[in-house]
Amino acid sequence: MARPRRSQATRERLLTEGVAALLENGYHGTGIQEVVNRAQVPKGSFYNYFASKEDFAAHVIQFYAECFAKQLREALDEASDPLDGLRGFFRALMSDFEKNGYVGGCLIANLGGELEGSSVCRDQLRAGFTGWSDVVAEVLRDGQARKVVRRDVEARELAALLTEAWEGAVIRMKIEQSVESLERVVHHLLDGYILSKS
Amino acid sequence: MARPRRSQATRERLLTEGVAALLENGYHGTGIQEVVNRAQVPKGSFYNYFASKEDFAAHVIQFYAECFAKQLREALDEASDPLDGLRGFFRALMSDFEKNGYVGGCLIANLGGELEGSSVCRDQLRAGFTGWSDVVAEVLRDGQARKVVRRDVEARELAALLTEAWEGAVIRMKIEQSVESLERVVHHLLDGYILSKS
Repeated sequence: MARPRRSQATRERLLTEGVAALLENGYHGTGIQEVVNRAQVPKGSFYNYFASKEDFAAHVIQFYAECFAKQLREALDEASDPLDGLRGFFRALMSDFEKNGYVGGCLIANLGGELEGSSVCRDQLRAGFTGWSDVVAEVLRDGQARKVVRRDVEARELAALLTEAWEGAVIRMKIEQSVESLERVVHHLLDGYILSKS
Repeated sequence: MARPRRSQATRERLLTEGVAALLENGYHGTGIQEVVNRAQVPKGSFYNYFASKEDFAAHVIQFYAECFAKQLREALDEASDPLDGLRGFFRALMSDFEKNGYVGGCLIANLGGELEGSSVCRDQLRAGFTGWSDVVAEVLRDGQARKVVRRDVEARELAALLTEAWEGAVIRMKIEQSVESLERVVHHLLDGYILSKS
């Protein structure tokens, strides 16, 4: 039997359109038909790439988390001070949200609320959340070494607090159609609680 | 034409089962058929109570938010110190989450992630979120008057920060199957950032 032909480009197109569809309509509100239509891929060949809708969603979450981490790393690399890089990353997200009318939000928070029944998706959500919290922890650890971040709490713990609060603020942003909640996290948590007072 | 017969008990049963179904499967994953089955109400009479699935979801959100606010008020009334009451409320939620295997979470956060397309639901999500943040603000304002809560930030702002961070922590809890994120909010935000240092 001939192996199905698969292309990396088609796979990425499906994943990219998967991110958009899942951000827009959630897991239960998204059909495979809609994804293949958006990606202009015949429905039959979808299953050359993914075993099921659940398998697809798990890969979409992984793909989204990788893009998100890459964006964060780029923002950090561009800045001379990692803390400024992190602040710049938050600003860029806020500005994107404002530009796009507060739609979508964060796929990890959205699906985290919706997808508790799927352990394969939850594994990817966990990896995605931990991934971004780990990068933030690196930034804060560096700040601790430079004594600009408080040192009485572990960087990993501060990063978890910050990223979790950010996700909650993104949910509130979607409800209120305003980035005020995101500003609050940066102002009170990052600049208020996490930065060193000395 | 005879007016359809409506009973308050049936309406409440539909709303109660609606909360359970929406918490479990989200908006798009919940069908009216499932709700009427759970509530043991004939499908036809559903429409004596609610105009549509969207109208139903909006009422479910309102019902959930009222129950949540009532629970919080009871916890506050039972405690001699409102801040202890708030802490007790958080503890009770954590203990329920642990007992129930971290399922469900918070309907407002879950649907906030999923339901941005519906302005009627968003209005109820906004009212629900504001409602619980307002009660928390009262507690913090009282704490400010007694000088046990920091006074350099408005109580309303502190309450928004705390409730938004809590919602993000609930999402993380569902992903990690652990209340560690919720403990973090109470420890660092309520007891660390919000309580007065003096």
